[in-house]
Amino acid sequence: MIAGGGFGGLWAARTLANQPVDVILVDRNNYHTFLPLLYQVAAAELEPEDIAYPIRSILRKFPNVRFVLADIKRIDLGKRVLYSSDYAITYDYLILATGSTTQFFGIPGAAEYSFQLKTLEQGIALRNHILRCFEYASRKIDDAKRQQLLTFTIVGGGPTGVEFAGALAELIHGPLKKDYPSIDFDYVKVVVIEAANSVLITFPKTLRDYALDRLYRMKVNVMLETLVEKVMPQTVHLKDKNILPTETVIWTAGICADPITEGWGFSTARGGLLMVLPTLEIEGHEEIYVVGDLSSIEDTRRQLPMTAPAAVQQGIHAANNILNKLTGRPQSPFIYKDKGAMVTIGRNTAVAQIGKRSFTGFFAWILWLIVQLINLIGFRNRLMVLINWSIDYLLFERAIRLILPLRKQPQPPRNQT
Amino acid sequence: MIAGGGFGGLWAARTLANQPVDVILVDRNNYHTFLPLLYQVAAAELEPEDIAYPIRSILRKFPNVRFVLADIKRIDLGKRVLYSSDYAITYDYLILATGSTTQFFGIPGAAEYSFQLKTLEQGIALRNHILRCFEYASRKIDDAKRQQLLTFTIVGGGPTGVEFAGALAELIHGPLKKDYPSIDFDYVKVVVIEAANSVLITFPKTLRDYALDRLYRMKVNVMLETLVEKVMPQTVHLKDKNILPTETVIWTAGICADPITEGWGFSTARGGLLMVLPTLEIEGHEEIYVVGDLSSIEDTRRQLPMTAPAAVQQGIHAANNILNKLTGRPQSPFIYKDKGAMVTIGRNTAVAQIGKRSFTGFFAWILWLIVQLINLIGFRNRLMVLINWSIDYLLFERAIRLILPLRKQPQPPRNQT
Repeated sequence: MIAGGGFGGLWAARTLANQPVDVILVDRNNYHTFLPLLYQVAAAELEPEDIAYPIRSILRKFPNVRFVLADIKRIDLGKRVLYSSDYAITYDYLILATGSTTQFFGIPGAAEYSFQLKTLEQGIALRNHILRCFEYASRKIDDAKRQQLLTFTIVGGGPTGVEFAGALAELIHGPLKKDYPSIDFDYVKVVVIEAANSVLITFPKTLRDYALDRLYRMKVNVMLETLVEKVMPQTVHLKDKNILPTETVIWTAGICADPITEGWGFSTARGGLLMVLPTLEIEGHEEIYVVGDLSSIEDTRRQLPMTAPAAVQQGIHAANNILNKLTGRPQSPFIYKDKGAMVTIGRNTAVAQIGKRSFTGFFAWILWLIVQLINLIGFRNRLMVLINWSIDYLLFERAIRLILPLRKQPQPPRNQT
Repeated sequence: MIAGGGFGGLWAARTLANQPVDVILVDRNNYHTFLPLLYQVAAAELEPEDIAYPIRSILRKFPNVRFVLADIKRIDLGKRVLYSSDYAITYDYLILATGSTTQFFGIPGAAEYSFQLKTLEQGIALRNHILRCFEYASRKIDDAKRQQLLTFTIVGGGPTGVEFAGALAELIHGPLKKDYPSIDFDYVKVVVIEAANSVLITFPKTLRDYALDRLYRMKVNVMLETLVEKVMPQTVHLKDKNILPTETVIWTAGICADPITEGWGFSTARGGLLMVLPTLEIEGHEEIYVVGDLSSIEDTRRQLPMTAPAAVQQGIHAANNILNKLTGRPQSPFIYKDKGAMVTIGRNTAVAQIGKRSFTGFFAWILWLIVQLINLIGFRNRLMVLINWSIDYLLFERAIRLILPLRKQPQPPRNQT
């Protein structure tokens, strides 16, 4: 059984497809989300459906792989049974690929008042909220309120924070400026708060400096070596005692395992990640493998990056190790092949590191575009994304500016009177 | 001021654009919904964003037309003020174009337990529910429960009911059959309940018979001269004492004005529609016009159809009558130009009546396709819809089979244990 239909789980399923095994893939949603592009849904650049693909369609070609829609609650390790709220499934081998969620580091108010960018629904909620802020800011309200509504604070200067900051800045200074002629756009602020002394701290210096420069040019206000002390509904309090008036806080500063994994009884590393042997097995429960963001390999000096390529490689590897068990072959240790990393900053620039080489600017963005399109699952999704991007690039337009609320009635921003 | 960004309100705004007037258009959503294609969203054939267009984008070219996002609650006729829950707007002239909602005729349980097809959110909710029914039916459950989950009951054999029945039947017997190989599709039933002795009762007999025949071929079970007595969470009780086990009831049997209009103090016709003079003014309050589904013209022998073309014509007419008032010209009575009606039944057939001529089959469907595409607002929407349809037609595929719930957590169908 494979718990999780993300990158790790799906590639494990594909590896086990058409093998002499029965596979059940379980996920709380009936679709796979292409998370690297989620920030574009939040910035109203892509439709939610463009980055989601129904899992049953992906599995159609694999008659030995079944799908069950369920939210995993509990695991009975002795009986080898997985429990959701209304269903129980037995397994012989289990691949845990349930991914990660947002890490708030215990900062007061962060979990209650920030927006996250880890699921499709969160991306939609953030998009709706941003648009609603502009709607309310276009009414007759006092300047202090307008400032709150039009300040967007991103906590975390890693890839997610940087990509979203760039996309948001473009949305604001492009299509939204045309849609809201009554708003004075000097009031609008996009702020990135980063604890380290640079954004993209894991990248080489040349790329970090380039990214910082690009953000400044896009009028993004980057606050380095800055820590958040607490988050309130309409303000963010910094450790240096500054207070930012803001109705929108987007928390991208860290990830950790979903708290539900604590109850499963495994040894955990920092952030609740599950410790595994180099073979990706859990020590003492070698019928269980862990892949993707959830796994933490014991004896690697360097933490694996929590990225899609890493999850894909682990998923394939764990599946092959299961096949090894079934055919009497030995387990093989996982070796990560670092194929590089890329981060976009706005519509036509990016930073990319491939091997030892670094690229910036338009060329890096083209590289990034190609990689995304290759990886998107499904012909239709690729075509849609390409068309949406083409429209955006040629017309500098964001066509998807709908407020489609998660609740039945639109709600004003928190504490809006 | 124009209350409502549907067909009536939007075309009124366009007529007043670039005239020496200040226009405020108010809507509870920031987008206009192309309702004629809503049934395709519910049948997972189109994405929600394909039939919705941000109002601000439409109004961008019209500097004298402003948009305000607000849900209208109350009208003070004396002071000429419109109130939402948190906002007040004054007007000199008012065009009421708030449309219609579902009419339940007082049938017990109908409002609580049916799905409606009047808004984008309802369309999405219905799609999610249908997919979830299949997900739960694919588990190990007893036959009676499976029958409930896989019976889909459409109350109302008018255009909406017929179009949705056809689209649903195609979804089920095409892509869903491939996605759910473990389900016995003999259990799946699509039922249409109609009180009259035919579907599409307002159409000529040849077209009615053709539609009925098509539905039968698509394995839709049409129950004519049948009335619903009450709706329960898992059953529908008919007046003839039959009981249908079904988790899904879609109510398309009637429309009426939104109940909020009762508090506005106007004379109403059947279904709460507001009575207007032939000029579309409200008698005694000639600064107020009513257009679209909400209006009922006093001295027409025949009720105007509640369709988009009728609303468009009325919207333009009311706007011109306002301009007449401002320029000292007389009011002109509204004369409806009936340009015909079309109803699709599945992917490549339709019935169409234009003037005195009737068309059926593939040719009628092509006519319908052309009309829809012409009327869709916005280049991008048209392109998207065309691509989605092309994929569906060529591949007989429904690519948009996501359960994207309105609530944060997916819920099992009602009363699922």
